[in-house]
Amino acid sequence: MRAVVFEKYQSAPSLQEVEKPKPGPGEVLLKVAGAGACHSDVAVFREFTEEFGPAQLKPSFILGHENSGWVEELGEGVAGIEIGAAYLVYGPIGCGHCAACSRGQDTYCENAATMPYLASGLGRDGGMAEYLAVPARNLVPLGDADPVAAAPLSDAGLTPYHAIKRALPVLAGGGKYALVIGLGGLGQLGVQILKALTGATVIATDNKEDAMRRAEEAGAVTVPGGPDQATAIRELTGGRGVDAVFDFVGVAPTIKLAMDSVALKGRVTVVGIAGGVYDWNFYGVPYEADLSSTYWGTIEELHEVVALYREGKITPEVEIFALDDALEAYRKLEAGELSARAVVAPHGK
Amino acid sequence: MRAVVFEKYQSAPSLQEVEKPKPGPGEVLLKVAGAGACHSDVAVFREFTEEFGPAQLKPSFILGHENSGWVEELGEGVAGIEIGAAYLVYGPIGCGHCAACSRGQDTYCENAATMPYLASGLGRDGGMAEYLAVPARNLVPLGDADPVAAAPLSDAGLTPYHAIKRALPVLAGGGKYALVIGLGGLGQLGVQILKALTGATVIATDNKEDAMRRAEEAGAVTVPGGPDQATAIRELTGGRGVDAVFDFVGVAPTIKLAMDSVALKGRVTVVGIAGGVYDWNFYGVPYEADLSSTYWGTIEELHEVVALYREGKITPEVEIFALDDALEAYRKLEAGELSARAVVAPHGK
Amino acid sequence: MRAVVFEKYQSAPSLQEVEKPKPGPGEVLLKVAGAGACHSDVAVFREFTEEFGPAQLKPSFILGHENSGWVEELGEGVAGIEIGAAYLVYGPIGCGHCAACSRGQDTYCENAATMPYLASGLGRDGGMAEYLAVPARNLVPLGDADPVAAAPLSDAGLTPYHAIKRALPVLAGGGKYALVIGLGGLGQLGVQILKALTGATVIATDNKEDAMRRAEEAGAVTVPGGPDQATAIRELTGGRGVDAVFDFVGVAPTIKLAMDSVALKGRVTVVGIAGGVYDWNFYGVPYEADLSSTYWGTIEELHEVVALYREGKITPEVEIFALDDALEAYRKLEAGELSARAVVAPHGK
Amino acid sequence: MRAVVFEKYQSAPSLQEVEKPKPGPGEVLLKVAGAGACHSDVAVFREFTEEFGPAQLKPSFILGHENSGWVEELGEGVAGIEIGAAYLVYGPIGCGHCAACSRGQDTYCENAATMPYLASGLGRDGGMAEYLAVPARNLVPLGDADPVAAAPLSDAGLTPYHAIKRALPVLAGGGKYALVIGLGGLGQLGVQILKALTGATVIATDNKEDAMRRAEEAGAVTVPGGPDQATAIRELTGGRGVDAVFDFVGVAPTIKLAMDSVALKGRVTVVGIAGGVYDWNFYGVPYEADLSSTYWGTIEELHEVVALYREGKITPEVEIFALDDALEAYRKLEAGELSARAVVAPHGK
Repeated sequence: MRAVVFEKYQSAPSLQEVEKPKPGPGEVLLKVAGAGACHSDVAVFREFTEEFGPAQLKPSFILGHENSGWVEELGEGVAGIEIGAAYLVYGPIGCGHCAACSRGQDTYCENAATMPYLASGLGRDGGMAEYLAVPARNLVPLGDADPVAAAPLSDAGLTPYHAIKRALPVLAGGGKYALVIGLGGLGQLGVQILKALTGATVIATDNKEDAMRRAEEAGAVTVPGGPDQATAIRELTGGRGVDAVFDFVGVAPTIKLAMDSVALKGRVTVVGIAGGVYDWNFYGVPYEADLSSTYWGTIEELHEVVALYREGKITPEVEIFALDDALEAYRKLEAGELSARAVVAPHGK
Repeated sequence: MRAVVFEKYQSAPSLQEVEKPKPGPGEVLLKVAGAGACHSDVAVFREFTEEFGPAQLKPSFILGHENSGWVEELGEGVAGIEIGAAYLVYGPIGCGHCAACSRGQDTYCENAATMPYLASGLGRDGGMAEYLAVPARNLVPLGDADPVAAAPLSDAGLTPYHAIKRALPVLAGGGKYALVIGLGGLGQLGVQILKALTGATVIATDNKEDAMRRAEEAGAVTVPGGPDQATAIRELTGGRGVDAVFDFVGVAPTIKLAMDSVALKGRVTVVGIAGGVYDWNFYGVPYEADLSSTYWGTIEELHEVVALYREGKITPEVEIFALDDALEAYRKLEAGELSARAVVAPHGK
Repeated sequence: MRAVVFEKYQSAPSLQEVEKPKPGPGEVLLKVAGAGACHSDVAVFREFTEEFGPAQLKPSFILGHENSGWVEELGEGVAGIEIGAAYLVYGPIGCGHCAACSRGQDTYCENAATMPYLASGLGRDGGMAEYLAVPARNLVPLGDADPVAAAPLSDAGLTPYHAIKRALPVLAGGGKYALVIGLGGLGQLGVQILKALTGATVIATDNKEDAMRRAEEAGAVTVPGGPDQATAIRELTGGRGVDAVFDFVGVAPTIKLAMDSVALKGRVTVVGIAGGVYDWNFYGVPYEADLSSTYWGTIEELHEVVALYREGKITPEVEIFALDDALEAYRKLEAGELSARAVVAPHGK
Repeated sequence: MRAVVFEKYQSAPSLQEVEKPKPGPGEVLLKVAGAGACHSDVAVFREFTEEFGPAQLKPSFILGHENSGWVEELGEGVAGIEIGAAYLVYGPIGCGHCAACSRGQDTYCENAATMPYLASGLGRDGGMAEYLAVPARNLVPLGDADPVAAAPLSDAGLTPYHAIKRALPVLAGGGKYALVIGLGGLGQLGVQILKALTGATVIATDNKEDAMRRAEEAGAVTVPGGPDQATAIRELTGGRGVDAVFDFVGVAPTIKLAMDSVALKGRVTVVGIAGGVYDWNFYGVPYEADLSSTYWGTIEELHEVVALYREGKITPEVEIFALDDALEAYRKLEAGELSARAVVAPHGK
């Protein structure tokens, strides 16, 4: 079968003919419906080196950690999974038997350091290929919802969903406010999820006009950048500040904007991995405003993301590519030429 | 001033000329904007007797426990309340210094047994009058929202809000279901609040067709009564059952419907005070489904209800009466001739 | 190897020579350290019939659902599990890929109806044998703690732990009260867990004097039975009632005692499966007191139970039997001749 | 009566003869039992100036914001408070009618900016005097517990209690760890409260040997300072890190120690007001570890603190001074000559 392989540090991946995988015991073979191309793939093949980057991400392996597909074959011991049915794939794969994996949060596997990979498509063969083998427990049924457009939900949907779910207690009730900073793929889905799950007024900001327009169409109030941005945001909240801020960028100025906008007892979640530094200071922050990072989500949460998708409450924007055009999809992603999530559909839409 | 006075057990109230109240220390005098007529008023003047009913509700007192008004005068020691501004009134008045009152939940005042009244309009003079004196801490600012239509929010809004807020943890996330049984004033607001605050699919039922139509307009899916009702509801949830049920009736068949519809780990809240009995049995209920009653709400929650009202997310249906027609409002309420909450507006709309 | 086999409905099990199991893919073979004998085993072999009882519990299978052991052999694909190390076994085994299983709560597996068994020792071969094969994800490491005495923790420890963990929010803070009804194996561990995890005053009751003495040694205040028991309990709480009640019996009078003792906003959890009926009535229960059942627990919680055991904070009382005496252990259990949990230790203490 | 008055910025207070206060409407006059001397008093009279410091703390007023006393006289409209009975005083006094005050959290009063004072003894006359007038809602009954030693609980007890209560969810269950940095008055009570309310292993550190000894007597494991301190702490937790850290110092190195010690999904609360800066960075912090400040607590929580005190579970260490020696108490506090909380007892022990 054909697959997009990351073969060498600091080089673009290549499209190759590789062997079709066989599902091991407890695994399922999927005919891939969609595989999303993610910025973190680019970080892996451009920035990592033998010295820099986790050992689990050493080449070579097939890329693609946002995957969906139709069940082709069941490995030994798998029951209750329907041949031909469409499933979304939870990417992270931990040891399976530590406390974190037992609650379906493989992202925080306690044995991650000794694992040979992090996820499907991150150290282990992923979904940028005709077929993909994954553990049965990583599958979430899609029912009759479109599996191709669903692919990005497993990361670009699950990551904001997890961050928002953790913040639901501070958004519970009338008169609450949320702020989304950065309106790329994750931020747009963040706005949709906030509108779907809460009664909060959703404020959004980005430096691209069209991204702000799309967020407005999804129900957000937008505030342009500039020196008075935090003041403008605070005014929208009647002076009180925002109950939950989600920073999908993560540079120093966005984290500062988040902390300048948040209300007393609010929550700031930095999702974006740009690595900005924030000078936290008792006298510079509202009392009891929580600041934390986050990372991806849990299997159970992915079931909930799929429920929203099946009800039509969230819709990822996608641009679909044939497998033959997968390298072009990555090129456009690197060049900033995409305005939607690139999804490779090896077997067509 | 004129006022609707409950003078004698088991008789209709009367419209009388009484003295205009003076605000005591820490109190505020309101010019009444609206006073809702509630079924529990009818219970008080029709069903209670010297022997039956709480001592705190002995006649005579002015009725009306769902009140709003404009600030007319401040009592000694009150600051930060604006003369002329519109406020909604939190009805319950406890001792003010026990743990429950300290958190603004006067409904559960630990010294209730020794208090001379339960609430404005329940033992203490209420709002069915031209003027009303209440403690400053019972006021919630309405801003520029219509204070007349707001009056019922202080009970018919706050009661479902409190029940729903307590259930938000089981409704948090995608793919959740809520069920509202009984679509009178509280039930309709319950549907609106659920739609405003959660992403749950809201199922609703009532034996009146037009009540079901109104709930549908507010976004609910309705299920008619009948022997297979619980089955029909469970099918809507894919077989799993409803995460949170709110029973605004409280007769034996509605509590049974609630328990037959609820999901494992769900929550059933009986709000309606009809006093039905349910035979709870380990083998007859889903695991970890919580069953409880509830009663009114907290001051802080009333601030949140007002926020929803000011944003236009909830709208009580009201039929407005002049103070001269207040007795007629109660007559229609007793006769079942109202299809909306009766609000007495002593100073006009 | 020798094993205690449930062969025929409504008959005692027998000790037989059977084949030593092989660990399947993803499974681990344990040399059994301890296997607890539980009242529910007796229910299975005495009360169930072809017509009555879940299809998953059809004979024949090896009994024993409270198990521990030393790792003897790893099945295909298992890594990160140490040969020779001691582990406790989480009993329930669900489909492994539904939302409930994904969070390690196989007890509530959404595909339970189509599963061929419920747990190790409940439909599938259990631990009353020299060897036992279980999925790797069901193992919890015991470190250097005694694995024989640990065996009952996987049910008699996990079940009260799960019920208590769910109630921790109502027990959080100073001045709280808990009530344990029924001081058999689960109740005694319930007292220990409450003392270990909360600052609550623990009240306990049983109709056996020596069981009350043991609870007192573990730090409980005891209240004997009798017509004024609920009043006596309420007095201990200063009249307010108990914040969390755990009924390990579940007959009608104990559920009534629980509901008569509970505080406003408290929580009653019926753990005991005696099936008593309680006439729930709005006017007969404190406001917002939650009533629910519960069942066993999660894998992650079993990790937490083991942490308490390793720190010496909980200690199950056990009476150890050789495998040759396993049938005698069940006989004593049926006859009520045990005062501690019977644990069969096939390879000695 | 005599009172310790803060008269002038940047000068020590003086002992003066002033008029005995009268309780206003809704207030209670207390005969002072105890008034604690707090570091923040010193900050007020030494560091603040006309330009620096909140307007609400302008001189002159009587010091003392940690107070207890016996009821001497009730103001107009107060009922349910017993003459002669002992009460602890909740210090903060907000507007009384905003959402924050309505839930008994006057510390976060939404109208604080327009209030003339912050608390009894902070802008408004406090308890370093023979008598003290406070609103009835600020009183918490002490029963027969010693009111003199209780005084510091209203700040040095409530502040760590509030911080810990907020962290209880991450400390819930077996195998949890807490870290207390700084073992002065608040830190020692923090250790006691953690031991009373949780099953966590409590780790504590300070640069004073005797403070560490006292924490050990209260059940903590201590870790001395030094370059490997975070490593030593992490080892105690089996490498996982601490679930909840409380930093009662708040300088840059202690906040860094807190963040270097905390576990994934843990919580760091900075209580100490030294104002240290921490360079927060996505790649330098464990995933989902919350960092926040905190400030004092709520009225309801003070009821819970008193419950722990009455049960003997927490015991503030105090050094008692006569009112005539109050200035000497402040002198010793400034000079660092106290090893326990100084409490002025105007009417003797």
